[in-house]
Amino acid sequence: MQSGRKFPYGKLIFFVTGNIHKFNEARRILAEHGVSVAMLKVKTVEIQDNEIENIAKMSALNAVREVNLPLIVEDAGLFIEALNGFPGPFSSYVYRTIGLSGILKLLDGVENRRAQFKSAVVFCDPSGELRCFVGISNGRIAEKPRGTSGFGFDPIFEPEEQPAKTFGEMSIEEKNLFSHRARALKKFAEWYRNFLGA
Amino acid sequence: MQSGRKFPYGKLIFFVTGNIHKFNEARRILAEHGVSVAMLKVKTVEIQDNEIENIAKMSALNAVREVNLPLIVEDAGLFIEALNGFPGPFSSYVYRTIGLSGILKLLDGVENRRAQFKSAVVFCDPSGELRCFVGISNGRIAEKPRGTSGFGFDPIFEPEEQPAKTFGEMSIEEKNLFSHRARALKKFAEWYRNFLGA
Repeated sequence: MQSGRKFPYGKLIFFVTGNIHKFNEARRILAEHGVSVAMLKVKTVEIQDNEIENIAKMSALNAVREVNLPLIVEDAGLFIEALNGFPGPFSSYVYRTIGLSGILKLLDGVENRRAQFKSAVVFCDPSGELRCFVGISNGRIAEKPRGTSGFGFDPIFEPEEQPAKTFGEMSIEEKNLFSHRARALKKFAEWYRNFLGA
Repeated sequence: MQSGRKFPYGKLIFFVTGNIHKFNEARRILAEHGVSVAMLKVKTVEIQDNEIENIAKMSALNAVREVNLPLIVEDAGLFIEALNGFPGPFSSYVYRTIGLSGILKLLDGVENRRAQFKSAVVFCDPSGELRCFVGISNGRIAEKPRGTSGFGFDPIFEPEEQPAKTFGEMSIEEKNLFSHRARALKKFAEWYRNFLGA
């Protein structure tokens, strides 16, 4: 009963997203850690900020105010070194407008193709608990898109641990071995198990 | 005295911005309409939204909550047709990262260079009055940057009324004849004179 008051929803947590790919990636990792997750579509406010951590924190706080449930929000970005971090926090807008071909055009003739995928997973609950977990995947931008798995910039990102493949050429299981999002979610899940057990 | 209660600051209005170029453009136009404006640097929250009107409204509401003064906020974006509206609401981030050369590279070999500068001026005051005024300047993206006046993407934007020059080659006075910001500010100033006189 001592956890009944603090955790009226048991171990179930809500992942605020409208992106089914993100949700499916998260569901597997959290399941491995014994955490059940439900997808929750809520219109959240995303602020403009150079730090994805701040964007995710504000979204999580707004979402908790709206739904009064324990939840996580994830924000991610692709940071390309030769482009001063572009598209960074605005990756999904950039994907929707200039797309993969725009990024490849910007890197045409550029030798330095180093890039970093970064994910911030923020947990927030009605009691005001707020935690941020960051995961990073270093890699490079491919010369051409390859593969159709995943979403967003996956087909042009080769993680350094498996440079022969892009994220777009990997199954969810394989991508979860190297991905920024998986790393952030694992950190969250380990903390959350402790938090629940406390 | 009837306006004393409603307008304790007289006709003085505060322009929330950290951009001195924007402020100087605004000061001239508002002065022509008998409105005095002071520059006010406040850290405002900018949301991510495809509509600059929504971004400016949220910023204005936040700023009024912070400082309790009658104020205006302006948000602007460059919408390039062949790039599906990119960089749009994220123009200043895109300017800081890939810059003019990035935009020109994206348009390399692209025939359609049509673009639109759009400005949203939002007035908000402690009484809860909230008004949005939009100004548009149609034009095209130049082949190369020209001129050093103005700021941001001015050196690559040729307005259709004066296609031989970019905004970067114009004085403030000349730019104010054609610019999106000037048009939005004029609409605001006309309304504001009425509002004060009411």
